[in-house]
Amino acid sequence: MAFSPLVDELVDSLRCLPGVGQKTAQRMAFHLLERGRSGGTRLSEALSQAMTGVRRCECCQNFSDTELCGICENPQRRTGTLCVVESPSDLLAIEQAGDYRGGYFVLMGHLSPIDGVGPEQIGIERLLKRIREEGVTELILATNPTVEGEATAHYIADRLDGQGILITRLAHGIPVGGELGYVDGFTLTHAFRGRKPLSD
Amino acid sequence: MAFSPLVDELVDSLRCLPGVGQKTAQRMAFHLLERGRSGGTRLSEALSQAMTGVRRCECCQNFSDTELCGICENPQRRTGTLCVVESPSDLLAIEQAGDYRGGYFVLMGHLSPIDGVGPEQIGIERLLKRIREEGVTELILATNPTVEGEATAHYIADRLDGQGILITRLAHGIPVGGELGYVDGFTLTHAFRGRKPLSD
Ligand SMILES: [Zn+2]
Ligand SMILES: [Zn+2]
Repeated sequence: MAFSPLVDELVDSLRCLPGVGQKTAQRMAFHLLERGRSGGTRLSEALSQAMTGVRRCECCQNFSDTELCGICENPQRRTGTLCVVESPSDLLAIEQAGDYRGGYFVLMGHLSPIDGVGPEQIGIERLLKRIREEGVTELILATNPTVEGEATAHYIADRLDGQGILITRLAHGIPVGGELGYVDGFTLTHAFRGRKPLSD
Repeated sequence: MAFSPLVDELVDSLRCLPGVGQKTAQRMAFHLLERGRSGGTRLSEALSQAMTGVRRCECCQNFSDTELCGICENPQRRTGTLCVVESPSDLLAIEQAGDYRGGYFVLMGHLSPIDGVGPEQIGIERLLKRIREEGVTELILATNPTVEGEATAHYIADRLDGQGILITRLAHGIPVGGELGYVDGFTLTHAFRGRKPLSD
């Protein structure tokens, strides 16, 4: 840019955001400089705090500010039911639907051998250990209804075969090929209530 | 959010960016936390520096890190020709087209009485003073080809009536109703070369 190294650096840095190209980054930078300096300063502070302060919950693998997240710390959420999701936004969608009161396990991905993502990368051993230790009686496999999500669900189900744990998948209502995090609360609640045992 | 005040605050803060709603902000936050922490830290630093360090050039009104921007500081750009644009991205588009070698004046907006934007808010007196002091012989009114852009150009032209300054508008090539910042370099160069005197 011809006029300001600070603006140049801001535009370049904004491109680390997903879906933000050169033109969008420019528009964002100019917007903040012209009309949103307090917002920009707040964002700077929030980024700095989050990038250094946010860790993974040692129990469910979700993002957390503390060793254990709020859900894992809450004894009332130890219902013997565990819901396995791929991402924090999936967990969030389920929480916002408001009906489910058990615990979670966040894979932070799905099995994808060609990308080098195996059981270890998504914490399967940690999940199995937790199921044993907490005496989980029902495991809801709420991975996305995609090829990878289904494969991940079936892998987990196979690993738990013969251990007497009820293993379920969410019911109708989730569009095939869609992403869980974008499903409305009503549909999600419906899918939760209609969950059925995995039989393949 | 159920799991992290730091993530909550990051998501809220990201919504100060134009065009970013709740879902997009969430996606951005999770992306940075999962795969882009170094980018997030760099962005935090760039925001902090830019929000406090970027000012307006005292000569052309464009964003600048210093009292005078690089273009205004360069004596070779004092060609007697001044190009008036609405925004920094317009200036940038013209600079990237690469043909124009004169000076600029950045209005940072256009006349819009219903929004309370009059001549004072876009620096018209400063522009007229500069035209007198620098002995400008040609003024290129490169405001956007929109109703407000045209009105702003005509207002400036009226204020300079009878002072023997050649006043031009950019030529064909700019789509009517379009935004200058989104025009390709070839079209812009063409429009610059074909500029014609304002006669209404
Ligand atoms: Zn947790
Ligand atoms: Zn300047």
